[in-house]
Amino acid sequence: MFLSKLKDAVNSVSGGEAAILMGFDGIPVDSYDKETRLDIETVGMEFSVVFKDVRKAAELLEAGTAEEITVRTDKMATVLRTVNDAYFIAMALSNDGNLGKARYVVRVLAPTLNQDLQ
Amino acid sequence: MFLSKLKDAVNSVSGGEAAILMGFDGIPVDSYDKETRLDIETVGMEFSVVFKDVRKAAELLEAGTAEEITVRTDKMATVLRTVNDAYFIAMALSNDGNLGKARYVVRVLAPTLNQDLQ
Repeated sequence: MFLSKLKDAVNSVSGGEAAILMGFDGIPVDSYDKETRLDIETVGMEFSVVFKDVRKAAELLEAGTAEEITVRTDKMATVLRTVNDAYFIAMALSNDGNLGKARYVVRVLAPTLNQDLQ
Repeated sequence: MFLSKLKDAVNSVSGGEAAILMGFDGIPVDSYDKETRLDIETVGMEFSVVFKDVRKAAELLEAGTAEEITVRTDKMATVLRTVNDAYFIAMALSNDGNLGKARYVVRVLAPTLNQDLQ
């Protein structure tokens, strides 16, 4: 259920490499990767900490609820998006991948995964 | 020098509200804001912590050097970009602002600020 949706999402993005549905506690629900050298579980775990910091910062600043974070390095890009209070999605793509498309795909995916989680 | 560049950057982005050049130690160099309710210094300080976490995470993951982070909440968006090892730029925009343009403007601004800082 989750896997096929994550797989479709990754494959619909140019440069898409991997995606994971994960709890903010760092425990993965399901993940898909396209035979990449990338360990998406570790990426998710590391960034779950960051995501929590960002949410805390945004609340402190009364800047609203953090919905989406993108991180670009010289090697790759990652899109993180809140699914609900307990879960988030992370999608990793190559540095020359279509980040705009990835943000769109993940934004559309989040509410359908939220329904599946109920 | 810094101020006029930050101001031009903010005003060239639809929905642009404020920008700051700041050290990773949280000490601001210069900032500009468009009569906004937003305290860009506080935003910068909070996110300097996040930025450091992300850089650490990216290094741990051997995912390269974190160059750019965007954070979207239901109220606003922020683009952060590394200028060099010691400084970064943050630009805040309204939630319906042009995030793609902001990323572009900040990417072009970073190397010119880096030269000014030498």
